[in-house]
Formats: sequence, C-alpha cells, structure tokens
Amino acid sequence: MRKIDVHLNERSYPIYIGDAILSDPALLKQYITSQQVLVVTNEVVAPLYLSQLERHLGQIDYDTVILPDGEYTKNLDSFNEIMTKLMHKQYSRSCILIALGGGVVGDLTGFVAACYQRGVKFIQIPTTLLAQVDSSVGGKTAVNHVLGKNMIGAFHQPSVVLADPLVLSTLSDRQLSAGLAEVIKYGLIRDPDFFDWLEKNIAALMSRDNEALSYAIERSCLNKAEVVIEDERESGLRAILNLGHTFGHAIETALAYKDFLHGEAIACGMLMAADLSVRLGLLDQVCRDRVCDLLKQAKLPVQIHQDVTFAQLLNNMKLDKKSREGVLYLILLNGIGEAIITADYTEQALEETIKHFLV
Amino acid sequence: MRKIDVHLNERSYPIYIGDAILSDPALLKQYITSQQVLVVTNEVVAPLYLSQLERHLGQIDYDTVILPDGEYTKNLDSFNEIMTKLMHKQYSRSCILIALGGGVVGDLTGFVAACYQRGVKFIQIPTTLLAQVDSSVGGKTAVNHVLGKNMIGAFHQPSVVLADPLVLSTLSDRQLSAGLAEVIKYGLIRDPDFFDWLEKNIAALMSRDNEALSYAIERSCLNKAEVVIEDERESGLRAILNLGHTFGHAIETALAYKDFLHGEAIACGMLMAADLSVRLGLLDQVCRDRVCDLLKQAKLPVQIHQDVTFAQLLNNMKLDKKSREGVLYLILLNGIGEAIITADYTEQALEETIKHFLV
Repeated sequence: MRKIDVHLNERSYPIYIGDAILSDPALLKQYITSQQVLVVTNEVVAPLYLSQLERHLGQIDYDTVILPDGEYTKNLDSFNEIMTKLMHKQYSRSCILIALGGGVVGDLTGFVAACYQRGVKFIQIPTTLLAQVDSSVGGKTAVNHVLGKNMIGAFHQPSVVLADPLVLSTLSDRQLSAGLAEVIKYGLIRDPDFFDWLEKNIAALMSRDNEALSYAIERSCLNKAEVVIEDERESGLRAILNLGHTFGHAIETALAYKDFLHGEAIACGMLMAADLSVRLGLLDQVCRDRVCDLLKQAKLPVQIHQDVTFAQLLNNMKLDKKSREGVLYLILLNGIGEAIITADYTEQALEETIKHFLV
Repeated sequence: MRKIDVHLNERSYPIYIGDAILSDPALLKQYITSQQVLVVTNEVVAPLYLSQLERHLGQIDYDTVILPDGEYTKNLDSFNEIMTKLMHKQYSRSCILIALGGGVVGDLTGFVAACYQRGVKFIQIPTTLLAQVDSSVGGKTAVNHVLGKNMIGAFHQPSVVLADPLVLSTLSDRQLSAGLAEVIKYGLIRDPDFFDWLEKNIAALMSRDNEALSYAIERSCLNKAEVVIEDERESGLRAILNLGHTFGHAIETALAYKDFLHGEAIACGMLMAADLSVRLGLLDQVCRDRVCDLLKQAKLPVQIHQDVTFAQLLNNMKLDKKSREGVLYLILLNGIGEAIITADYTEQALEETIKHFLV
C-alpha cells in the first residue's frame, strides 16, 4: 500500500494507492463518520464494483444514485437530481458522499458535495486511470455548461482518495489509453525522469502490468499533489496541469463531447502545445517527435480526424478559462519536463498549429 | 462615512456605510479591477438605482441582467441564466460581478460568482435594510431548492460591500420592517446594549431617521463581522446568527415563500425561539414580552395567520440545516443578548410553542 499526503492545512487528506483497497473494509470505514451516506456511481461501474462497496457499508442506511455513463451527464440537471435525492432523504450537513466512478462521477459528486448546504464531506473512489491520476486529486469539482466544459464548479477537497489499480482490469483499452495521456502529462510538465521511465515502460503499462500501473499512479499523484499544495486555487503554478487542455477542451466542445474521450482530446492537445512550442523556437523537433511517438505507443490520437473546423477550434479556445481579459494564455513546453504559462506567441504560429492537426 | 473591516486573511474586505455612496464614483472605481463587469439587479431596483451605478462604470463595457423581483427567482434556473450570459459574452476568470439589490440578488449573484470558473470577484451593493445588515455581509451565498431554502450554496466573500442608507428611502414600509427584524436579532443574540438602544429608538428607525438608520446598520454589521471573523464557515458560533431561522424557514417553506417576507418569517421565528426558551426555563416571561413588544412596534408579525399546519412546520424544521444526524439543534435565548445552540429541549415544549403561534 502506498500513501500520499496532500497537505492543505485543515483541508489535508491522504491518497491511498494499492491492490484490493476496494475489498478491504477497514480503510474505508475509518472515513465513514456519518450514518447518512450517499453513493454516486454510473450504469457501467455499478454492476462491477457497487456490491463490493456496499458490503463495507454494513449497517449504514446508505442511498445510491446511478447515473447514465458519459460526459453529457456532467451537467446542472444531474447536479439537481442528486440534490433532490439528498433533500428528499433529509440528509444533514454532516452526511458523506462517495463518488465511485471515473472523472465525470467524481467531478459531479464533488461539486454537489461543495454546494449541498454549502459544503459536506466526500470520498473519491476513482475507477478509471484518468480519475486515479488526475481528476480525483486536487479538489477541482465542476459540471459542464452547454457553452463550455467545467465552467461551473468549485474547489472542494475530498476527505480521502482510494485508488485501487485492480479496478483497471475492467477498463476498456481505450479508457486505459485516455488515462495514460494524463500520466504522460506529468512527465512533460515537470518530471523528465518520469517521462524517460514512461518511454521505457509504455509496453508494460499497455499490457496492464500491475506493478507498472501502481508506480505510474503513485508518481502521477505525487506530482499532482506537489503542484496542488503549492497553488491550491490555481492563481499561478497550478495552471501547468492544464497542458494540452486549452486545445483539448476546444476539440471536445467542437465535437460536443462525442467521438473523443477527454484523455484523447488532451493527448492531441498536448502534442499541439508541443508543436506550437517548436514553431516558437522553445522546443526541439526531436522532443516533439518523442512526445508524438509515446502518444502513438499509448494508442492516443495525434490528429483530429473528425468534422472540426478551424474557426470552431480557434473560437472555443478563446472562451477557455485560461483566457484573461481577452488574452489567451497557453501552457507550452520549454523542454520535456518544463512547462511555461505564456501569452508570448504569434497568432500566426497558433493558427499554423491548429491547421496542421486538422485532417 | 463609516468603515468596517472584515478580517479573513486573503479574503478580507471592507464594508462602507454612508449617505450617497451610490453617487460617489471614486469609492466604487477602486474595486473595479476588470474591464468585464456584469451588473445583476431586478425589475424593482433597476429603474431606481441602475442608472446611478452605470454612470460610475464610465468607459467599461459592462453587461446587465435584470431579474424578476421576489424570492422565487433565487433558484438554479436564474443561476444558469446568469452563467449563460457570462459564457456568451466570454467573461474571463478575472471578471467582476456586481449585485445591486436585496438579499435575493445578493445571494444569487454571490453564488454565481462562487461557481463561475470556480470563483470570480463580486461586489455587494445592498439596496434593502435586510441585505445591508445581514445577507450582504459574511459570504454566505445560495439559491433555494424546491424542498428547502438556501440548500444549494457556497461560502464566497465579496470584494467590498457598499451600504448606502439613502437607498432605503424608496423601500416599502414592509421591507423596512423586515430589515429591522435582523437588526433586532443582533441585539438579541449578543448585544444587550444595542437591544436597549433599539427599544428607545424604534420610532426614529420606523420614521427613517437617517442618523438612526446609519447607526443601526453599522452596529449590526459590526456584530455580524465579529461573529463571521471568529467562525467563517459556521462550524460553531456562527450558527447563533440563525436565531429564529429554523422556525422562520419552516414558515417560509410552508407558505411556498409567499405571504411572509423573509424578515417577517424571521421575526415570528425569533419570538418562537424566545417562547420556547421561556417554556424551558431559560428566559424570563418579561424578556419574551419585551421581544414581542419591540417586534410589534417594528410592525412585524408575531403570529402565523396563514393556512399553515402544525405537521408542515414540524416536518420543515426537521429538514433544516441545523439538523445533524436526525438531531434538531435550535438557537435559543438564555437572556436578551445571549444566544445558545442546543438540542436540550423536549419535543413537547417545541410542539407547544408551534401550536401557540398557529392562529
């Protein structure tokens, strides 16, 4: 069992990483400090892992919300549906919510926990690689608005994160790859040794070697925790975690959250950031090619095949959260393992990059 | 001009109280740190004060949302409407929202500010007495759910509060009285000298004597600020600010937010709390009668005349936020100026109090 402490004063919490966490009742139980527990999950995860979790809840009179699968459920309607459940059952301010699922379930449940009676506790049990290494850690919660992803949300830290690599056995190949996109991100933005390790171990990860996966999750969470501890509310440094996200969100919005998984859009977006960095003379072509190769080995997209137009992408990017007073800041690469936040690029270079990736 | 500093570390902010603040452009301008400004107000306030505010915004390309008047607009639909406006106009994370109105506008705008891109700045310009002395100060923001008031919300402090007693000249008598309910509350919970002062000056306040109103606003805000500084997120002490609110919210919910204004429901609720305190031997009958007399002089209700049933009230109370794990904590009075938070009362005494107030 590996444990990482996220030090955030009174909002501190541990991340546990290890096989069979979900089948170990003791760990979970110490965080269940209420008799009112609501488990939020979805139609895909529920048949696989809900009964394991329920066994640990024992005598507790818990409730369950099972949502449809997919990014489109991460909206204000689902938010309101869970709120109604809590209200109907007269949940008090000391209740606990458990998010059992991927990033959608985690972000949505976390946002409900942030807002119900102005804040209640919640536990993250991420069941996708992407959620284990990224969305479940750091306290960003949100729902999507029709006009933009994650535009309505809050910072609200969980009480504990339980990441069990064994649950990844039921993940589709595509979902595994999508998670690897965020793993690769940590190497790119601040951990060059980890990037090297990933290049050497990508085959083991793709074949779901358990030890390799556990190490990748731990190293990713460590990187994320260090960044979050330094800048919990994204007033500066934390923005580097958004490498590829401005491009990626623009792709997702243009595709109405279909066709590309989040991690796939981020993968393509990271390569676009690398590409733009090369055009601006920040990054070597060789490094860009290493990024491209690793993404390909992880079976991640390196082009946008769908019916997305140049104008759509550019417009969506300008609405991105990183845009300040009309200036679009981007996360670019000074090298592998060194991200920068900058508005120092030419519109022409940006447009060339976008065009380059539209097939 | 009076100024109160609410010390909350990096979330600290000033409250300015004084005549003609709204006609003084200099004060507001120092807090407008963005070129993207959205003013949220309502159909009653807009014709009276929006043009004054707009003059101060000068060259800034601001937008305006004008909501219908009334508590029923404080819901997720209005929340989403303002979000859509911000998204459509591509407001960035550094934008500023201005709440120009009473408690509904302030709570709703504050909650939007708390959640848009996980938090943007907002300015409170309260135009009712109730908002000036209570809801605009302390960072509680929320919308209502059909099943309960203020159940969806966040703690999000404003950048500044500008309270101009001159705007109270256009307030209806009923709204003025509703605001006085919260003013009286501060005397009851922690400031016996202020309660004495209110007994002596209630006539001046009712006749809108400007000096009396300014003093009452300042003393109320001081009391509120002291409580909020000690317990920003209501983990303990702050709950005393809810004197009368568990009863009051139950009345409002039973009346579907019609017939009684918020302050009126709170007035009746405070007297119910005093009544229960007498039944439990905590408070003298004489003190209860002083409370009743002052509320009557402020033309506030001391009974529930409408079609509200005993069962409705009791059930609504149990869903109140102050209910923890099935135990309903109440704010009661040990004396005038001394509130306590307790679950140490008999169901019978509570039921007697409820029955006593149903006509």
